[in-house]
Amino acid sequence: MAEKLKIIPLGGLNEIGKNMTVLEYGKDMIVIDCGIAFPEEDMYGVDLVIPDVTYLARNAKKLRGFFITHGHEDHIGSVPYVLQAVSAPVHGTRLTNGLIRLKLEEHRMLDKVKLVTHAPGDVVKAGCFSVEFIHVNHSIADAVAFAITTPVGVVIMTGDFKIDPTAVEGMMDLTRFGELGNKGVLALLCDSTNVERLGYTPSEQSVADNLDRQFKNCDQRIILTTFASNLHRLQSVLQTAHRYGRKVAITGRSMENMLKVATELDYIKPPENTLVDLAQIKSLPKNKVVVVSTGSQGENMSALYRMAFSSHKQVDIQPGDRVIISASAIPGNEKAISRIINELYRKGAEVIYDKLEGLHVSGHACQEELKIIHALTRPRYFIPVHGEQRHLQRHAQLARSMGMPAKRVVIADLGKVIECTSRTCKLSGATVPAGRVFVDGFGVGDVGSVVLRDRKHLAQDGMIVVCVNLSAEDGSLVSGPDIITRGFVLVKENEDLIEAMRMICMDSLDYCRNKGISDWATIKSCMKNDLSAFLYKNTKRNPMILPVIMEI
Amino acid sequence: MAEKLKIIPLGGLNEIGKNMTVLEYGKDMIVIDCGIAFPEEDMYGVDLVIPDVTYLARNAKKLRGFFITHGHEDHIGSVPYVLQAVSAPVHGTRLTNGLIRLKLEEHRMLDKVKLVTHAPGDVVKAGCFSVEFIHVNHSIADAVAFAITTPVGVVIMTGDFKIDPTAVEGMMDLTRFGELGNKGVLALLCDSTNVERLGYTPSEQSVADNLDRQFKNCDQRIILTTFASNLHRLQSVLQTAHRYGRKVAITGRSMENMLKVATELDYIKPPENTLVDLAQIKSLPKNKVVVVSTGSQGENMSALYRMAFSSHKQVDIQPGDRVIISASAIPGNEKAISRIINELYRKGAEVIYDKLEGLHVSGHACQEELKIIHALTRPRYFIPVHGEQRHLQRHAQLARSMGMPAKRVVIADLGKVIECTSRTCKLSGATVPAGRVFVDGFGVGDVGSVVLRDRKHLAQDGMIVVCVNLSAEDGSLVSGPDIITRGFVLVKENEDLIEAMRMICMDSLDYCRNKGISDWATIKSCMKNDLSAFLYKNTKRNPMILPVIMEI
Repeated sequence: MAEKLKIIPLGGLNEIGKNMTVLEYGKDMIVIDCGIAFPEEDMYGVDLVIPDVTYLARNAKKLRGFFITHGHEDHIGSVPYVLQAVSAPVHGTRLTNGLIRLKLEEHRMLDKVKLVTHAPGDVVKAGCFSVEFIHVNHSIADAVAFAITTPVGVVIMTGDFKIDPTAVEGMMDLTRFGELGNKGVLALLCDSTNVERLGYTPSEQSVADNLDRQFKNCDQRIILTTFASNLHRLQSVLQTAHRYGRKVAITGRSMENMLKVATELDYIKPPENTLVDLAQIKSLPKNKVVVVSTGSQGENMSALYRMAFSSHKQVDIQPGDRVIISASAIPGNEKAISRIINELYRKGAEVIYDKLEGLHVSGHACQEELKIIHALTRPRYFIPVHGEQRHLQRHAQLARSMGMPAKRVVIADLGKVIECTSRTCKLSGATVPAGRVFVDGFGVGDVGSVVLRDRKHLAQDGMIVVCVNLSAEDGSLVSGPDIITRGFVLVKENEDLIEAMRMICMDSLDYCRNKGISDWATIKSCMKNDLSAFLYKNTKRNPMILPVIMEI
Repeated sequence: MAEKLKIIPLGGLNEIGKNMTVLEYGKDMIVIDCGIAFPEEDMYGVDLVIPDVTYLARNAKKLRGFFITHGHEDHIGSVPYVLQAVSAPVHGTRLTNGLIRLKLEEHRMLDKVKLVTHAPGDVVKAGCFSVEFIHVNHSIADAVAFAITTPVGVVIMTGDFKIDPTAVEGMMDLTRFGELGNKGVLALLCDSTNVERLGYTPSEQSVADNLDRQFKNCDQRIILTTFASNLHRLQSVLQTAHRYGRKVAITGRSMENMLKVATELDYIKPPENTLVDLAQIKSLPKNKVVVVSTGSQGENMSALYRMAFSSHKQVDIQPGDRVIISASAIPGNEKAISRIINELYRKGAEVIYDKLEGLHVSGHACQEELKIIHALTRPRYFIPVHGEQRHLQRHAQLARSMGMPAKRVVIADLGKVIECTSRTCKLSGATVPAGRVFVDGFGVGDVGSVVLRDRKHLAQDGMIVVCVNLSAEDGSLVSGPDIITRGFVLVKENEDLIEAMRMICMDSLDYCRNKGISDWATIKSCMKNDLSAFLYKNTKRNPMILPVIMEI
């Protein structure tokens, strides 16, 4: 039986985030993207979510390289974690690699990873695969799609993209997509993020125009927040500021880092004498100042958050300040952003955040743009990626509406193996390990579902520790029960309840003693059950109960 | 000095929810609305939030009545809690009182509260106040605004409203607002929920039209979810179903309750032979069935949730089912709704949720409608209510844009006293107790900020209990330290860490012993600090640490 190409999604399917896709043929394997996801609200205490890369570790010898489409966290964030488990060169464009380098430095791993830098148009051999870098537009500079020539045909992975005909760096290379389509594309893996939106995503240039309107005739201080990685946006802000004779100061760690990398690599060219240190703005008139800040997603303790809540060391919001939020909310962040907006208003600032003001555009293709890519590449098979189930299915629907037969659309899932020959492409029925690995502090993978379940239980109703000392000789009560609670009720105002709990535990101990029960596990579960029933009946709450028995 | 009218917001200002406003003059006091808020995501384990009514309790003798604008939870939800603390008649329209009655029954308080039912146009004397009920449109039937004649002038509270010229129950009584305006209005308190939206809110009638399109030519089963309280919507669904020869079954407790009350009170008139029991739908062809369900906000364990996740006892989602979500997400619920939509798609359902389909309209007035109310009432003073700071300020801006002098706009806050004479209206500088009271299980107010802080801490990194037995004679270690963790790390895979923690505690005890420290508080904090420092260094986590010392 002839060898088949395997395409295995390890992240980014049925979720937004932690993108990672494996291509495997015979003894060769490459990986596209290596991202993180941010924890959902029920993942208490989790800092980051990375993909399960057990399958990569098992096939470490086959691994020919990582190929990274662009420098967003959901595409590069796992590099420091995954490259501890396996080793292979990492291929990216200049900016992407600059940002990966920053991460590796933080993790003190710079010497352990081989970073190889390429430009759009480059073709990289990796085992039996040739990977071509193709320029696309996105909300970060230097983004690429990949056309991967495999032994069974060409596979295109768009990565995140939009079509921006007036982009500063030039429109994405539609011609190349068309040429590949003319030669024949076996499978298209295409970004589905914005598939629910009609029409086109507006150009980044439109934001620059609208920014100008906000600066014009404004005689107040301007404070602006946006995604740190949107370098074209930052460049627009710098130029607009320069045009109106304003100096720009930066605040927030990720913004400072990004500006440093981008300036070094020449992706941002600040107009002369425009950037100033934050300390200098106090000596400037208000209408000569722009502060560019992190916090566009309402992040706790971001620079904008600290300014709004008066805990920023250098900048206080003053009545009349014009605060421009040049971003839209990533789903789930609406309330956090609203909290900051409310506080800014309370301080007397003018806050500009309306969609109608056109101060943000998405980085992802809407329906009409997606159709163009489908029409140019005319793939034999279509595999929607980068989306939740709703997005994948809507994207499949879009492909079918363009004439793609339903059976040539493959909706996969994490860990499900897609097998391709030069004529076929389908789910093989096989699976590989895939899923979420939680990062909490230094721990990677040591917080699992049991720990999270306990954290959730603790969060819900708090906990109660019951300590008793039993005699080693006859099991009689030597001291206790002592009751300690945290997160349950206000102790001072509920002393009667605490005392009643003590009594319940005494009764349980008496009962066990009378029944001749001496094994600790049974005594503990007896106390726990009695207390739990008592508390539910009296408070309708279900705190975690931890009986502790010590023997004297 | 002449008596002044006091207007005191106890809820609904700088927040969405738990609406409650006090009007006080001399020895008389009335309260408008008595709502709950739903807990924010950092209020771990809290079921409901109700207003702090300390001020009402202190002035119980003055209390002449509660006046309720409509039957939504954020206007009636606190009635059973507040009417335990104070006593006064509750005035509302027929449907509003029907829904309050349902709540009082659940709390077994029906005999303790006097419910008085009125119709729009009625005027109720309450001490020195006369309260007039005025018909308005909203997303629940029988909503009213109040015009309150006080000794210093007329105060209008719009409650939640929109202007719906094609509403089934007739357009809101704009004429009456205009007549009051002609006679002179001292102060307008006006809903600010949708002030950020341009234009007009579409009519509920438009939803009925769009529903028809979804039923027409559909030969699949239809499952529809909406807000249970939107009776006009439910009536439209029943009629549309009837038109297409479909039977309607209801699932979900709040939907069943609402339908029962609304049918009894004649607010819903189901077409003959249209409503069937859920058990009956299995015997009907798919194109003859509509299931109307709770869960439009993605609520855990709602009927739609259970259908999607295959835990509903009677209905399973089947491929081809058309699921219509006739609602939009209340901010904060986006992810929960998305989770259900994804699962419905996975089961092969067709899911209709796009804004473009016009299957939901808001119940609140947008900018143009608000302007009409301002223009009709021409109040001397304007007090924006029902909104976060951003909404209050935008509403103030709207009023100013219509010629209202800035100094005649009063942006208040919870507990801040607004004082009015017939010529003036301003914040007096005085405050009364106001804020949030948490309901958790049976407990009202026994969960406060300390308990929530502990729950948050527990949720973040879990907890560690360290138990030691010390000798009563010389303070030496008799047994322990025993280490118990929950929600910290997977214990089985981290035995070395647990053992290291034991050693750290032993060292702390040795240290204390050598230093002659015998008081328990110091020994505990010594163990806690040492362990905390050790854990942060090694895991970058900060679990709650509870040292327990028992003396033998």
